Amino acid sequence: MTTQTQTAAILRPASYVSGQWHANADGQTLVDAVYGRPIAVISSEGVDFAGALAHGRKHGAALRKMTFHTRARALKALGLYLMERKEEYYALNLLTGATRRDGWVDIEGGIGTLLSYSSMARRELPDERFLPEGKVETLGRAGTFVGRHLMVPREGVAVQINAFNFPVWGMLEKLAPAFIAGMPSLVKPAPQTAYLTERVVRDIIESGLLPEGALQLVIGEPGDLLDHVREQDMVAFTGSAATAAKLKVHPNIIAHSVPFNAEADSLNASVLGLTVTPDSPEFMLYVKEVAREITGKAGQKCTAIRRAIVPSGMVEAVTEALRKELGKITLGDPARDDVRMGALVSVEQRDRVRETLAELRREARVVIGGAEGELLGGDREKGAFLDPTVLLCDSPLTATGPHELEAFGPVATLLPYDSLDDAIQLARMGRGSLAGSVITHSRAEATELVLGLASTHGRILVLNRDDAKESTGHGSPLPQLLHGGPGRAGGGAELGGIAGVKHHMNKVAVQADPTTLAAITREFVPGGEVREDVVHPFRKTFDEIQVGDSLLTHRRTVTEADIVNFAGLTGDHFYAHVDEIGAKEGIFGRRVAHGYFLISAAAGMFVSPAPGPVLANYGLENLRFVEPVGIGDTIRTRLTCKRRVRKDLRPDDKQPTGVVEWHAEITNQNDELVATYDILTLVVRAHDRFDAPAQPGPEGAAQA
Amino acid sequence: MTTQTQTAAILRPASYVSGQWHANADGQTLVDAVYGRPIAVISSEGVDFAGALAHGRKHGAALRKMTFHTRARALKALGLYLMERKEEYYALNLLTGATRRDGWVDIEGGIGTLLSYSSMARRELPDERFLPEGKVETLGRAGTFVGRHLMVPREGVAVQINAFNFPVWGMLEKLAPAFIAGMPSLVKPAPQTAYLTERVVRDIIESGLLPEGALQLVIGEPGDLLDHVREQDMVAFTGSAATAAKLKVHPNIIAHSVPFNAEADSLNASVLGLTVTPDSPEFMLYVKEVAREITGKAGQKCTAIRRAIVPSGMVEAVTEALRKELGKITLGDPARDDVRMGALVSVEQRDRVRETLAELRREARVVIGGAEGELLGGDREKGAFLDPTVLLCDSPLTATGPHELEAFGPVATLLPYDSLDDAIQLARMGRGSLAGSVITHSRAEATELVLGLASTHGRILVLNRDDAKESTGHGSPLPQLLHGGPGRAGGGAELGGIAGVKHHMNKVAVQADPTTLAAITREFVPGGEVREDVVHPFRKTFDEIQVGDSLLTHRRTVTEADIVNFAGLTGDHFYAHVDEIGAKEGIFGRRVAHGYFLISAAAGMFVSPAPGPVLANYGLENLRFVEPVGIGDTIRTRLTCKRRVRKDLRPDDKQPTGVVEWHAEITNQNDELVATYDILTLVVRAHDRFDAPAQPGPEGAAQA
Repeated sequence: MTTQTQTAAILRPASYVSGQWHANADGQTLVDAVYGRPIAVISSEGVDFAGALAHGRKHGAALRKMTFHTRARALKALGLYLMERKEEYYALNLLTGATRRDGWVDIEGGIGTLLSYSSMARRELPDERFLPEGKVETLGRAGTFVGRHLMVPREGVAVQINAFNFPVWGMLEKLAPAFIAGMPSLVKPAPQTAYLTERVVRDIIESGLLPEGALQLVIGEPGDLLDHVREQDMVAFTGSAATAAKLKVHPNIIAHSVPFNAEADSLNASVLGLTVTPDSPEFMLYVKEVAREITGKAGQKCTAIRRAIVPSGMVEAVTEALRKELGKITLGDPARDDVRMGALVSVEQRDRVRETLAELRREARVVIGGAEGELLGGDREKGAFLDPTVLLCDSPLTATGPHELEAFGPVATLLPYDSLDDAIQLARMGRGSLAGSVITHSRAEATELVLGLASTHGRILVLNRDDAKESTGHGSPLPQLLHGGPGRAGGGAELGGIAGVKHHMNKVAVQADPTTLAAITREFVPGGEVREDVVHPFRKTFDEIQVGDSLLTHRRTVTEADIVNFAGLTGDHFYAHVDEIGAKEGIFGRRVAHGYFLISAAAGMFVSPAPGPVLANYGLENLRFVEPVGIGDTIRTRLTCKRRVRKDLRPDDKQPTGVVEWHAEITNQNDELVATYDILTLVVRAHDRFDAPAQPGPEGAAQA
Repeated sequence: MTTQTQTAAILRPASYVSGQWHANADGQTLVDAVYGRPIAVISSEGVDFAGALAHGRKHGAALRKMTFHTRARALKALGLYLMERKEEYYALNLLTGATRRDGWVDIEGGIGTLLSYSSMARRELPDERFLPEGKVETLGRAGTFVGRHLMVPREGVAVQINAFNFPVWGMLEKLAPAFIAGMPSLVKPAPQTAYLTERVVRDIIESGLLPEGALQLVIGEPGDLLDHVREQDMVAFTGSAATAAKLKVHPNIIAHSVPFNAEADSLNASVLGLTVTPDSPEFMLYVKEVAREITGKAGQKCTAIRRAIVPSGMVEAVTEALRKELGKITLGDPARDDVRMGALVSVEQRDRVRETLAELRREARVVIGGAEGELLGGDREKGAFLDPTVLLCDSPLTATGPHELEAFGPVATLLPYDSLDDAIQLARMGRGSLAGSVITHSRAEATELVLGLASTHGRILVLNRDDAKESTGHGSPLPQLLHGGPGRAGGGAELGGIAGVKHHMNKVAVQADPTTLAAITREFVPGGEVREDVVHPFRKTFDEIQVGDSLLTHRRTVTEADIVNFAGLTGDHFYAHVDEIGAKEGIFGRRVAHGYFLISAAAGMFVSPAPGPVLANYGLENLRFVEPVGIGDTIRTRLTCKRRVRKDLRPDDKQPTGVVEWHAEITNQNDELVATYDILTLVVRAHDRFDAPAQPGPEGAAQA
């Protein structure tokens, strides 16, 4: 284990644009955060930004030719590849002032985001190049005119301007959804920690796992980059609200309506519930959460708790416990095992925090820290160290500083409150936050606080004894959940599962007749043409089945014996089926068949009994019983291939399969729809994997 | 029937702000579009914009206390109320230069949007004040930490700045989704036609159907309105790209990250397919569609066809047919029955179009129109008349004017092409459009064109012989489908069904333990606490049932007889159930029970047979067969109330009901999940509507 942060020869992190590495001998010199020793020289001098964007746009075509699943598999391979090399990143992480624990969030959290997006994409997206969205809308009474939304990749470059605090996660959390969507990324990390980003990009490029053009990197100043973005490009920015406001109005961005997504650090609040007492488990959960947020990454997180909203009567107890907790925090060289908190990213950043702290003290007083404690390694002058500091603002409802001034370091302010309404009001005074938290075991209190905070927050954590063990904490964005927030937080939206992918796509409404819409979306649209042939659709392999393949079954008359037998066999003696008196008075006015009998009898009509390519019916969706079926009614079923979803295959799969979704409609003797639903089946991919020939079985011939 | 557009005394349309009507004696004088006679004086002098916004924000609280369905019912009542008064609006519509047919789109189209949003909201949204969004995400292995997104109304005012061309629809299409979301609107119509907007607003206010503050109106200049918008407000703008670009960068909008949605008119294209011949039905469909788009509303639609992209070999035929079609268009006073096209909104607007036309002629030549024809009423000098004009650009791939210059009047340019790639390229040269269309009967051609246009369009119509009869046309936005487009079209998004409602809401991710998340969202979360009592849940009325009410049934051993009998009864003799040899070789390795037997037997276990509050099981969702059940396995079912959805009741409803969704889990003797699904039941609202007492039935006592 290293015990002191090491520096090697001066690094010259290079830009990677238009398929070439580009470094300069001269440029801005960066120093490490712990000892202030020169570590790297960066410069984007000579980078052709217009050319880089053109390169990305041109190569985007190849990326868009891949399907969501192909991209997802590339992302998974990339994640595993980078994970093997993580120790290289941890070494550079120390230079940024961050401990290994801080680095874990950045490095393994970032790589984990690639893996999460890979699995979400394979689970939730079709194996296609575009995404049909929502339901088919019937636009005319006769059903000849229908509409549906499609999402397709934007055909430009996603320009991603990142903050210094998460040089790895910051890049990968933007890259992952953009890549899944089919959009190339051009990454511009913050200069201070760009050498770590570059180290990871170097591995990505060397891996050859992403197609050329899918990732470009600019190390240094962004030059005239934004002068060249166009309609199909987009810009995603993470950083200060001030810089966001400046970039957002760039004339070229405005002239071309380039989407601009901003994530700005915000004055996030954490509320301790009124029902929590010093001896409830939630008390220490709160104290530890606040302490962790103050000290993690030395407080340099845009989601960190800046405002601790605490019942007035609990301020003293919380302050005491927090003092004890923060007392355990040792400062110094993050390479040392005995160090719990490292340095800020730079002395400039440290000085800025000190200035803000001085401003905050006009309306609040320091109750914990504020002085310089012992340093375990590192250089007090040249390193960017700052001790954890907690302030108390006695009149937070009338104060402005604690709600407006962000000390982007290990600093938080305690804000006392008397009623839940006041707590909500205080949280809202931050004018929009990325993250909030509510610590209480009372469901009623949690509900009131969460709904009160909902309109001004992007994410809210409820922490209590029940979820504490698995909680990922106030400050951690997750790939599945929205990262962003209104107002002060920038008004942006990132991550949030597949929603994050969709941010990189254009939504278009398509109107057509059902058959044409089915051809475009590759999903059957009820009312559209179907295809019937002599081969029973269940005797076709996944690769043979086509959307629109259809079977109209023989008929079956539903008899009293069916209903009685079904009731007896299943035990379902509901009066509507078996009680002549009750059924007459009920909503149907007569005894009717069990709904489950209808879908079971329908299966009896369309199933092809002998072993064949269809392995199993594993699920069902959208079942609606439309009209009742009485004794003597005669039913039949139309089964039509609705869509085919290739499964993500492992190379070692013995019997590759795909999912085929079938639309089923049961009608009665008057051609009235009695039930409609979709069936999910698991189907063998190809014949060489399967014994039986694709010949019409006797039942196929009889039914088709 | 009027035969000449009438004007009465000078109108003084008033602003409605902070609950007061506010008019001025002096101001800008408006003239009618047909004869140029003074018709109205408008001015916003003295309007307190900051006060209006504050008023809206304050009264938003009452609006947010209503549920989606309550708001939807108000909207429906309002739509019916306005429809009764439509003739008043048609009379004013003539003054804007529009024919009755033009007015139909604006007036009845606008009122129809209220009715559409009312029914979409009641059908697709819960009867709640917020909207749980997407699925529950499991965030920890043990299932104690879960997350879900919620959408809540933004707690500010939706400032809506509208264009002159649709004074009614333009207001109502923005108001409807904002109101459903729970957000008050402040409407600022374009001055030219503001008197018509005001007439409708006057009726809305008089109706008393919307709560105070839900709608405010500013007639005249917007003054310092935008200086006062804040984080929770939003701005939706429709108009020119130039004005959008100006407003979007308003320092106050940037400083507070106020969402700004822009709909800008765009250079929309319509492509005639390569496969269309002069004698295919699609030929005349194309010609008529282009003619209708050129002349409807005198071409003053942001979705109108500006560029007709036509196979080179078809240009002559299309021009001829279009000339004949446009020859039928009579110009003049829109009050006259024999007039097919009215005037532009103002002579200023007419002159602007003439100027753009002159610019267009640098790269294109006029092939139809361009001269002044006969006028049937109206004043050629003082009225804003302009004859339909079609240009032809011979080298459209190298020209810029036709793709950049918008003549916002009855003007379109023919652009010849040779290959589908070129057609796509030409359409894309508009740099982003609200609407596009593709006229072809070839599914392959439609697919290629639609996917080629998808990234640069907000909506694409495929028109052919199959959907022509029901098609609503190239230029008509529909409430169900997205209205908006990337790039030149402004990058905004309106309508699109419930998505349009969500634009007015804040999305927040909530993380908690399952029980707390269920309490907040009012939907059961698997893994959360359930409530079991002596009363069978199916013997409770809708009003009595609570989310989390649960029943664990008795057990049942699945026997060989069950499988055999089920196969015999249903006719489902699939080998996995009945063929010992095939089943052994199959994926389960043994005979297993039919999946439908399991859910049928589960119903047999949890159904309460006697007549009771549960009227019917009308549907099923999310069914997954997780593990097979073999002979000798013993199953049981847990049924838990997942959510309650109040139905939209008509006052005359004999037996008010609600929908209760139940989560069912079937487990085996090892407590392994074998199947999971959600059941939809129709349940009587209250006991006074239902005979049987809420006492435990014998089966309830036995099962609970």
